[in-house]
Amino acid sequence: MSETEAHDEVTAGFLVIGDEILSGRTKDKNIGFLADYLTAIGIDLREVRIVPDITEHIVEAVNELRARYTYVFTSGGIGPTHDDITADSIAAAFGVSIDVDPRAEAILEAHYPPGELTPARLRMARIPAGADLIDNPVSKAPGFRIGNVHVMAGVPSIMQAMMDAIAPTLKTGRKMLSNYVDADIPESRLAERIGQIQKDFPQTLIGSYPRTNDGRFTTQIVVRSRIEEELKKATAAVEEAVAEALA
Amino acid sequence: MSETEAHDEVTAGFLVIGDEILSGRTKDKNIGFLADYLTAIGIDLREVRIVPDITEHIVEAVNELRARYTYVFTSGGIGPTHDDITADSIAAAFGVSIDVDPRAEAILEAHYPPGELTPARLRMARIPAGADLIDNPVSKAPGFRIGNVHVMAGVPSIMQAMMDAIAPTLKTGRKMLSNYVDADIPESRLAERIGQIQKDFPQTLIGSYPRTNDGRFTTQIVVRSRIEEELKKATAAVEEAVAEALA
Repeated sequence: MSETEAHDEVTAGFLVIGDEILSGRTKDKNIGFLADYLTAIGIDLREVRIVPDITEHIVEAVNELRARYTYVFTSGGIGPTHDDITADSIAAAFGVSIDVDPRAEAILEAHYPPGELTPARLRMARIPAGADLIDNPVSKAPGFRIGNVHVMAGVPSIMQAMMDAIAPTLKTGRKMLSNYVDADIPESRLAERIGQIQKDFPQTLIGSYPRTNDGRFTTQIVVRSRIEEELKKATAAVEEAVAEALA
Repeated sequence: MSETEAHDEVTAGFLVIGDEILSGRTKDKNIGFLADYLTAIGIDLREVRIVPDITEHIVEAVNELRARYTYVFTSGGIGPTHDDITADSIAAAFGVSIDVDPRAEAILEAHYPPGELTPARLRMARIPAGADLIDNPVSKAPGFRIGNVHVMAGVPSIMQAMMDAIAPTLKTGRKMLSNYVDADIPESRLAERIGQIQKDFPQTLIGSYPRTNDGRFTTQIVVRSRIEEELKKATAAVEEAVAEALA
């Protein structure tokens, strides 16, 4: 890989925190959202992990992901209840202290009627030392950024609003462009030609995705590249292969 | 943890393999399905990872998960195209050879019209040495089990059929029972009482999940336990706490 290409790549890992996703009770909506969002702004999502509300699991996953990718995003576990242990776990992962943050406390003080900032609610102002706050326009209790890790709420509407607050601060790579070709035949009938096209155009990523459509097997071929000219040529080659297979 | 409890616990990790999930082009439907399925049969899903179609990533994730949990399940990357590298990656993870498996080849031979079992399609019969086949009633090309790892297709209808084939072979733990209590108030107003109830009933797992409902914040409290009596008592305590908070 040339230096230019390396410079173009900005990568990310996403950590979803919560027993409720692993038990099936809550169906995750944040992975698909973040995947689309990061692709749109030119950041490659490379790995996702879902872990339970257990400190050691969170610490291990955060430390592995932050060492490996440009950015890490997390969702879940920053509310006021006993099972919200994300902030403390992130502090442990970074080896920093954690306490009620005066900036976060001020936001919550302004939000709740006098006397209603209970000890439980004040838990939401616990922020690791050295972190920046992430604005929460929906329900006020902030997220935070420490190092390359961005800690967000799990409720999708809040997580999405926090992503909008974070996005302008991120460096982004040259955007991945993509085309797709639908083929009304099973992928096994295209596999050899598509494999050859992938070899012919090494600066593209070609994916072949089987679908079922009214009980018939069809295929979608997706061509991705950061270089528009390569994308065009490879897509044309795929279209030709599909036309030949159908002929 | 007592020996009895340890024996009751059967755990699982799930590995989703595929660039298309990480780019957002395909929205995963298998995580929620497997989470529900495993919970229903008494297996605890403890971790999920989504990795790209890159051999080293797959090998690393499989080896970490299989060392850690009773069972591992994977979905994706066992089709006929160049980007389907799961079977070879699993063989590499286990340090075994991989070749066209006569049992799998016979299944595909019987499925395709004479002469149509092309080299690309025959790729789907590549199975690591020592693995058992997993039946695929939908499109024939089998999955496989090696050690504690179960390798399934990514297409949801096929993955679900494969899970039904696998389920009778799994040992399952004492089933996790659960109740929930809906509360039409923000979770911060319940947090202290719920935290105390969690302490009072250590053999339960109590989760507090904020929701937005027409712009209002509401809460669902989920109580889980393997012991019915504990579940009942803790649920009653939660109901009392909610009633008091609403009074």
